[in-house]
Amino acid sequence: MSNKKFVEKVTAMEDDFGQWYTDVVKQADLVDYGSVRGTMIIKPYGFAIWENMRDELDRQIKETGHSNVSFPLFIPESSLQKEKDHVDGFAPEVAWVTHAGDEELAERLCVRPTSEVLFCEYYSNNIHSYRDLPMLYNQWANVVRWEKTTRPFLRSLEFHWQEGHTAHATHEDAAEETARMLEVYADVAENHLAMPVIRGKKTDSEKFAGAEYTLTIESLMHDGRALQAGTSHLLGTGFAEVFDIQYLDKEGKQQYVHQTSWGITTRLIGALIMVHGDNRGLVIPPRIAPTQAMIVPIAQHKEGVLDQAYDLRDSLKDIARVDIDASDNMPGWKFNESEMKGYPVRIEIGPKDIEKEQVVLVRRDTGEKEFVAMDALNERLPVLLEDIQQSLFDAALAHREENTNVATTFEEFKETLEKESGFIKAMWCGKESCEEKIQEETKATSRCIPFEQEKIADTCVCCGEEAEDMVYWARAY
Amino acid sequence: MSNKKFVEKVTAMEDDFGQWYTDVVKQADLVDYGSVRGTMIIKPYGFAIWENMRDELDRQIKETGHSNVSFPLFIPESSLQKEKDHVDGFAPEVAWVTHAGDEELAERLCVRPTSEVLFCEYYSNNIHSYRDLPMLYNQWANVVRWEKTTRPFLRSLEFHWQEGHTAHATHEDAAEETARMLEVYADVAENHLAMPVIRGKKTDSEKFAGAEYTLTIESLMHDGRALQAGTSHLLGTGFAEVFDIQYLDKEGKQQYVHQTSWGITTRLIGALIMVHGDNRGLVIPPRIAPTQAMIVPIAQHKEGVLDQAYDLRDSLKDIARVDIDASDNMPGWKFNESEMKGYPVRIEIGPKDIEKEQVVLVRRDTGEKEFVAMDALNERLPVLLEDIQQSLFDAALAHREENTNVATTFEEFKETLEKESGFIKAMWCGKESCEEKIQEETKATSRCIPFEQEKIADTCVCCGEEAEDMVYWARAY
Repeated sequence: MSNKKFVEKVTAMEDDFGQWYTDVVKQADLVDYGSVRGTMIIKPYGFAIWENMRDELDRQIKETGHSNVSFPLFIPESSLQKEKDHVDGFAPEVAWVTHAGDEELAERLCVRPTSEVLFCEYYSNNIHSYRDLPMLYNQWANVVRWEKTTRPFLRSLEFHWQEGHTAHATHEDAAEETARMLEVYADVAENHLAMPVIRGKKTDSEKFAGAEYTLTIESLMHDGRALQAGTSHLLGTGFAEVFDIQYLDKEGKQQYVHQTSWGITTRLIGALIMVHGDNRGLVIPPRIAPTQAMIVPIAQHKEGVLDQAYDLRDSLKDIARVDIDASDNMPGWKFNESEMKGYPVRIEIGPKDIEKEQVVLVRRDTGEKEFVAMDALNERLPVLLEDIQQSLFDAALAHREENTNVATTFEEFKETLEKESGFIKAMWCGKESCEEKIQEETKATSRCIPFEQEKIADTCVCCGEEAEDMVYWARAY
Repeated sequence: MSNKKFVEKVTAMEDDFGQWYTDVVKQADLVDYGSVRGTMIIKPYGFAIWENMRDELDRQIKETGHSNVSFPLFIPESSLQKEKDHVDGFAPEVAWVTHAGDEELAERLCVRPTSEVLFCEYYSNNIHSYRDLPMLYNQWANVVRWEKTTRPFLRSLEFHWQEGHTAHATHEDAAEETARMLEVYADVAENHLAMPVIRGKKTDSEKFAGAEYTLTIESLMHDGRALQAGTSHLLGTGFAEVFDIQYLDKEGKQQYVHQTSWGITTRLIGALIMVHGDNRGLVIPPRIAPTQAMIVPIAQHKEGVLDQAYDLRDSLKDIARVDIDASDNMPGWKFNESEMKGYPVRIEIGPKDIEKEQVVLVRRDTGEKEFVAMDALNERLPVLLEDIQQSLFDAALAHREENTNVATTFEEFKETLEKESGFIKAMWCGKESCEEKIQEETKATSRCIPFEQEKIADTCVCCGEEAEDMVYWARAY
């Protein structure tokens, strides 16, 4: 239990969304800042949320046939430089190890910003025949990218993620894998984080450095800015040609493998905060909440109250993740703390409740209260948790729909963005110059070309020439 | 399934134990070498073994009240240098980051070799009152130590571990914690890895850099060399004084916290190999085996065999971790592969077995075969697995006892070590000079002062002066 004397106020999100975010992250005890600029310490509550996300994703990664592995932290400079687009994309922001103890290294080593290069070198040595394929690897790892401006979870010098790296016999197999893993990400986001996502493809200018194409799930935050929640890349044979990853096919012919890579990061915690949080703090979806229900005893100094509260916790332990706040703080303080931490349900139990053999359940999301007979709690609590899970998803979806607009002309596009934030659906000709112009004049970027296309107009919202695709645009994190 | 055409021979351990180890590690598909000297790639099977160890240890760490957290990878040079003994112990083997992108950093950062320093800075900012104590943190992380000679799992530039870091109000609380976590380590080693350990205290010359004392569990490998399998350090108030970690006690007085730290690493996989393995490969204890039983179909081209084999696997899936080798390799090849990987049980099923409604169970440890009726398998398999688990422990314990000798004079000590390896129990006066002399002349080091003391003699085995403690000595990894 925290020993803070009171829950400090958080800035209202309407007044300053950035400050609201920072306040919540700090007040809810998720992180602290590391001593190196831009690094973060993930505290117990923040890490417990990450563990629950990670465990669910890990389960699905294994269920789809992948094996976890562990590759080294360091990449020799010469290896990083082999794939041109890749090194251009990452070299400006890598950390370089130059010395070990007192000695200067013969070759500089970069701290991995991502591990395609290392997996490629391994695949080159370990893939020989079509029988070795597909090779389906994943690793949970820390990576380092030397970002100029940083924010806890959203952008930090070091972050945690999983990176899947796979090699396949054919383009079709690799394309299927790319789509399959995007669907796994969408499932975790929607069904566990209660966070609706748009599934689509990145434009070429937004794709991963070295990829043929990048698939993405995009979500909308409370403030109307978009956040890329996970990406899955079809690498094609680009890396295989550079790293010479070939296999002997059934006809005895040498072929390049077709690769994919895909990743989800601790950024998702930031998304979770900005999709569900409110001015009282976090709101954590029940399926990933470390504590699904917090018992708060009322008048706990009175005889029997604490005993009953502990009995209650024990009786619920196989039903849900239940904890008890038996600290000597006042109930009002505990209510605030419970709301700040975003526990989905608060269970109040006091002398009167004990007399009536009932408890009070308070939903974190809507604040609704209900009285439930103690002997009905085992049945009611799981139903309530599922209801909250669904309600959070529905609310986030409704918010996204309210904040998704359509523009058919550039004027309309700019006016809409000036009036309100959110997604704009608009047609695009496929030219990078239009993307650049839109970004320059509105700060909105192309988020994705959604799989679910709508024909909003015949012409590009920017240049007026023939349109190719409908694109989601937004200002983004 | 592996597609290797045959299981290559491993060197007999009697001929060259080091080569046997390297062969097994490679043939059983546990690791590959990274492109940076001394780094390793942990392959799927190796990582699955680590995951099972880790999950059990993680469960016990949480059960004893600790929370997982995540601290940064980098430590500023100025922070590392604060605690004198600590920096002396680690500085010679740390990797230094000096540049990010094109820019030289204002201060060098070391890649953590261990994280006491970062936890101390955090504790200094976050511990204020006795109500904040104890603070019980743990992290699973990668650390880097620039070792000159390396070997997969046993000594590598980068390795995985958990590091617990705790702060307590009193010396007594911290000492209890230090002992508690050693006992957790001993439990995981003995009851899950089937690896008997000696519990004891390191001599001052062998303790952790900066600690008041270090507790250790020591195990004996097949070749008679010892391996330190886990350590738990009482740091006392040394770090607290340097980093100014104080709390207000109940009487309103400022007090320094008493700290501990404790860790177990991927080294344990090396220990597992060298305690249980044999000339046919790995032997993995059932409780942590990723595959507890491997089904090998015999004459699988015959009608019904593969169907029955798959049905068998499905029927056992809630009983044990069962897999099937349905590759088109020959049964003999599959037997070898199954032995190399150390699956505790092999289940053979062929046309004759199907006719008789039975299967053949083959134990990896003893090679014993038994015929079991198919409808009795659900009961028999778990019992057999438990039996193997116990037998592995018993065999390792017997091996240790056979290879533990007593010496009362230095002559005897040297003669014993010349004739046979293993532990030597001998009395010690407590002087570092005797430890140094013993190491110089015999290459044996003090492994620990065991909690279970025996009075073997009155005088030090080296100098002949009055003895303080009985010590376990051995040549060690």
